[in-house]
Amino acid sequence: MSSRERKKDKGIPTGVVTRLPIYLRYLTTLRNKGVSRVSSAQLGEALNFTAAQIRSDLSYFGSFGQQGYGYDVNELLHHVSRILGLDRTYAMVLVGAGNLGKALASYENFRKRGFEIRAIFDIDEHLVGNYHACCIIQHVDNLENYLKEHPTDIGIIATPGDVSQSICDIFVRCGVRSIWNFSPVHLHVPEDVIIEHMHLTDSLLRLSFRLNEREQRD
Amino acid sequence: MSSRERKKDKGIPTGVVTRLPIYLRYLTTLRNKGVSRVSSAQLGEALNFTAAQIRSDLSYFGSFGQQGYGYDVNELLHHVSRILGLDRTYAMVLVGAGNLGKALASYENFRKRGFEIRAIFDIDEHLVGNYHACCIIQHVDNLENYLKEHPTDIGIIATPGDVSQSICDIFVRCGVRSIWNFSPVHLHVPEDVIIEHMHLTDSLLRLSFRLNEREQRD
Repeated sequence: MSSRERKKDKGIPTGVVTRLPIYLRYLTTLRNKGVSRVSSAQLGEALNFTAAQIRSDLSYFGSFGQQGYGYDVNELLHHVSRILGLDRTYAMVLVGAGNLGKALASYENFRKRGFEIRAIFDIDEHLVGNYHACCIIQHVDNLENYLKEHPTDIGIIATPGDVSQSICDIFVRCGVRSIWNFSPVHLHVPEDVIIEHMHLTDSLLRLSFRLNEREQRD
Repeated sequence: MSSRERKKDKGIPTGVVTRLPIYLRYLTTLRNKGVSRVSSAQLGEALNFTAAQIRSDLSYFGSFGQQGYGYDVNELLHHVSRILGLDRTYAMVLVGAGNLGKALASYENFRKRGFEIRAIFDIDEHLVGNYHACCIIQHVDNLENYLKEHPTDIGIIATPGDVSQSICDIFVRCGVRSIWNFSPVHLHVPEDVIIEHMHLTDSLLRLSFRLNEREQRD
């Protein structure tokens, strides 16, 4: 089956999507080091994937690389960036200006990649009116009005779990089609809304699970 | 193949490990609502898995539930907690007291689950000596000495990417066997060290990928 047929098929498998940012990060490192060419074997060794896996992943997006030559780092980086949607900017709105929200708003890497937090909302009267990362923190009561006037690509939820579904509902009602959720709650969204969960506790629990599994084995 | 035979086989599949924290979170919600019994079909519907998937996942850990009755919520919660290693405490050390590090150190949910940040280190002289979340922030030069005297289960890295590998190496050299990495870098650890990456940018890129994929389809 050719890459084009597979692509037409239905979406890219989750595993491939998960690996693309890993390729992007590593290729960026290579480019910054002045490396101009890389083979699938070298990519595989650096990233702990097989060379076949890498060739298969990249084949979803067209035919890159040449047998015996490998990949041109700049060209591959350009393709992977485009595939990941990094050839445009994204308007983002953050709700929740606690420590985590502040960390997200200050994260320079996002802005560099085109992900711009354009407004920050919180319920805490002590925070409202303060500047953080070039935004004035606004009261969450204004969220709906703001969204009506400012088309927003991605809604970021960094609130406590007990209010996150209601914030999510406001985003959805106002036409925001992608949600990035940091609250420790499984949020419900309509089928046409994309949601990406960052559950910190889940990640920590995977670590403790493996730690215990290993200690029991040793 | 019985659950016991499978368990002996070799480790639990990553997919199952990924879903266990999701079960834990939902079962905790159920218990807090006073629900005492749940079927695999109900679990599946709430979490977007099939009932067969849930029965298969839980079968890795022994036989819970009864046909026609379902699962006893408290009992299942107890089992899942134990499987995830929540019947003990974990000594954690955090390096990097920026916004993200501070967010992690203040996160009450971790402490409630037995994950205790016992020391915080940073290189910034303005932060060193300050209290945060019941710890005095220490200079990172003291990290190695601290670790030699205080057995530590989990090392948390919330530093910029250019220093994270050297911090990781100190953790490993001092016998820390699990690393929770928030820096935007792929860290190298020996085979017997467990590492869990939380790459925020990767998560955001998965979102932008899907957003673009959908826009191109529409």
